[in-house]
Amino acid sequence: MTQALRIGIAGLGTVGASLARILTEKAEMLTTSCGRPITIAGVTARDRNRDRGVDLSGVEWHADALSLASNAELDVFVELMGGAGDPAYSAVKAALARGIHVVTANKALLAAHGIELATIAEKTGALLNYEAAVAGGIPVIKALRESMTGNTISRVYGIMNGTCNYILTRMEREGLTFEACLKEAQRLGYAEADPAFDIEGNDTAHKLSILTSLAFGTAIAADDIYLEGITNISIEDIRAAADLGYRIKLLGVAQKTDSGIEQRVHPTMVPVDSVIAQVDGVTNAVAIESDILGELLMVGPGAGGNATASAVLGDIADIAKSRPGAQNVPAFGRPVEALIPYQRAQIQNHEGGYFIRLTVVDRAGVFASIATRMAEQKISLESIVQRSKQHTEGVEPQTIILVTHATSENAVRAAVEKIKAEGYLVGEPQVIRIERPKAA
Amino acid sequence: MTQALRIGIAGLGTVGASLARILTEKAEMLTTSCGRPITIAGVTARDRNRDRGVDLSGVEWHADALSLASNAELDVFVELMGGAGDPAYSAVKAALARGIHVVTANKALLAAHGIELATIAEKTGALLNYEAAVAGGIPVIKALRESMTGNTISRVYGIMNGTCNYILTRMEREGLTFEACLKEAQRLGYAEADPAFDIEGNDTAHKLSILTSLAFGTAIAADDIYLEGITNISIEDIRAAADLGYRIKLLGVAQKTDSGIEQRVHPTMVPVDSVIAQVDGVTNAVAIESDILGELLMVGPGAGGNATASAVLGDIADIAKSRPGAQNVPAFGRPVEALIPYQRAQIQNHEGGYFIRLTVVDRAGVFASIATRMAEQKISLESIVQRSKQHTEGVEPQTIILVTHATSENAVRAAVEKIKAEGYLVGEPQVIRIERPKAA
Repeated sequence: MTQALRIGIAGLGTVGASLARILTEKAEMLTTSCGRPITIAGVTARDRNRDRGVDLSGVEWHADALSLASNAELDVFVELMGGAGDPAYSAVKAALARGIHVVTANKALLAAHGIELATIAEKTGALLNYEAAVAGGIPVIKALRESMTGNTISRVYGIMNGTCNYILTRMEREGLTFEACLKEAQRLGYAEADPAFDIEGNDTAHKLSILTSLAFGTAIAADDIYLEGITNISIEDIRAAADLGYRIKLLGVAQKTDSGIEQRVHPTMVPVDSVIAQVDGVTNAVAIESDILGELLMVGPGAGGNATASAVLGDIADIAKSRPGAQNVPAFGRPVEALIPYQRAQIQNHEGGYFIRLTVVDRAGVFASIATRMAEQKISLESIVQRSKQHTEGVEPQTIILVTHATSENAVRAAVEKIKAEGYLVGEPQVIRIERPKAA
Repeated sequence: MTQALRIGIAGLGTVGASLARILTEKAEMLTTSCGRPITIAGVTARDRNRDRGVDLSGVEWHADALSLASNAELDVFVELMGGAGDPAYSAVKAALARGIHVVTANKALLAAHGIELATIAEKTGALLNYEAAVAGGIPVIKALRESMTGNTISRVYGIMNGTCNYILTRMEREGLTFEACLKEAQRLGYAEADPAFDIEGNDTAHKLSILTSLAFGTAIAADDIYLEGITNISIEDIRAAADLGYRIKLLGVAQKTDSGIEQRVHPTMVPVDSVIAQVDGVTNAVAIESDILGELLMVGPGAGGNATASAVLGDIADIAKSRPGAQNVPAFGRPVEALIPYQRAQIQNHEGGYFIRLTVVDRAGVFASIATRMAEQKISLESIVQRSKQHTEGVEPQTIILVTHATSENAVRAAVEKIKAEGYLVGEPQVIRIERPKAA
């Protein structure tokens, strides 16, 4: 038998503890599949004494991640601490510099330093595997980096934040407010005490930046992402979407256009009979559209200790199955020097359908004015719905909902500005982009 | 630069020609991704002179696949001829025996000889890759063989035949008969002139046998599959299913039970709000349920020259990225000697919900008799629907539809036999199993 693969685990939180338990409980099965045992050669974590449901007494403990990465006799350094900066950053760099393979679930680290880390990995021949960093248990990194080699990708998009999808699903199913659903998500452990990072879209943006690089062969550009969270989605939007045959999902979308690559994270209306519209609760989904394969959609758990540990384990197993120094899988699908600079397509040039919800004072001519403003911008409308709870002219504000055919963000913004200037709007207009799967 | 990967292509039909075109048109991109060029070092096909949209004039032509596999200087032998027997069988054996990696899209060959081929591959250190053999462009082999290493699978199931799914989708959408939809599928090239292999479920069975081996670590047992095709699904079944909140799909299902592993291919009712129920037309989908990852669902094109070639290309690229002899990925997820014999769970022991549609003569006591026969077998019912077009007692046959809670195949069969013996049935009873995704 080939000698054991020695791994060091930095971080024994939910994912790290799951991984350690699985490695222990499934040792025999893993040895059979990988052709050699996988052993935990070192660990580090903040609290050494916490009960993690696994006996780590025989394992070498290190004071910190940098010590584990720098000093332990390892084949693979598994980074499960999270965070874009130290201790994760320096430890991963140290491991790669020593030629030790790295497996990480850290999207923030890759979004901030992915290219630098890939450069070091290439120099030393180490692998940088990060399946768990995007969409948890869904093997989307492997699909893009390996299965779809040779495909030219036109769009990759997905539901990559379980917190947001849980909130939107509950709002739709139960007619509850955003605030009520967020509280429920926090109670169930699906949302952090400070939920901003999830609900403002930043978490999705980190993941999207990684997918963009893999899909389009561009350097990671996590700061060049158009970002809108879900905090201003109201139950009225969700109901209006349902009436028109749509559901609202927070999508991350990267798309090739004539003027560059769009990277955008925003609430999106998807057709209710599309597969992705059925993805409910904390489940994630990623769709990839390409010239050869066509459309591939993958649905699965995007978070959770076990699901994330499964992805980490798959990355470790890939290394275990190959002989030392034998594989050449560039971290972002091609060598760093072959990555092209990311050229941002401005959101103003985005083309697609739009949902626009306006609350207006009820007076004669408003409807005609709105229709005129749209026509001036050459926006053609798929539908216009006017709602009145009870019609007492001049008393009750009315809701007008427009769904446009494909148009440009510029046109929509110009029309909405003109309409705002008319003075008959009550509150802010709501604008939600529509995203359609390629397949019928 | 490392030296080129030399591939030989046996079979230049739709998939082979697509592959040759892609290798030519995307040569630069592939070289960048794989770290070395991929060159076509030899080909063989029945007709040398056919226009395939790619210039193969400089490529060495071989008289047959065996000659290509035995004599050419190759790193990878790509078998795209199909068929369980020769020429594919002997050629693949010859290549593996020489230590040449094999990439194949041939499900029939693997179903019949997979274990023998894996044994030869292990001896010589060759890889046997076959992503394209199951569900076309969907990377389900990679998911099971690599990503999910360490997972204990409980069930794998899917829509793996585009012809059947196309027919069922059209029947549902347009209210057409099976025969009319089959003709349309043939006209569009989605079904063969002799469609038996698809519509009777054999094609799905071949694919399922491969997934079963990967999922459960068992030797392939393609002859041990319970098989029912879609030929007796009527528009009445589809309508009744819709009324009850289900859609009918031809699924291949492999499932671990107390008495062994079920392998079954049959028309199945799936809840209409499940993700898999939305998979329409020729699209395929595969779901995998496991202890660590949870539920993973992949949806994509199951056939077509380009989609299949994409999967073949992914397999070739994996080999191109690794140095010669450097990888150890057992063909069926574990070494052949570690595969356990397949132990078949009899369909009679299957447990689940059932849809039963009975056409009965309209006379007093029939309903009570049916209910009694069900109760005798301790079958509890989720719903009973009686339909009459116009009620003129004794004249018009009536339809009675039962949906059971979880029960056993034995109980259902016993109840149906008793009911048949009563003499009030018109025609044969229709029995369709219900399959529920694990996730809510």
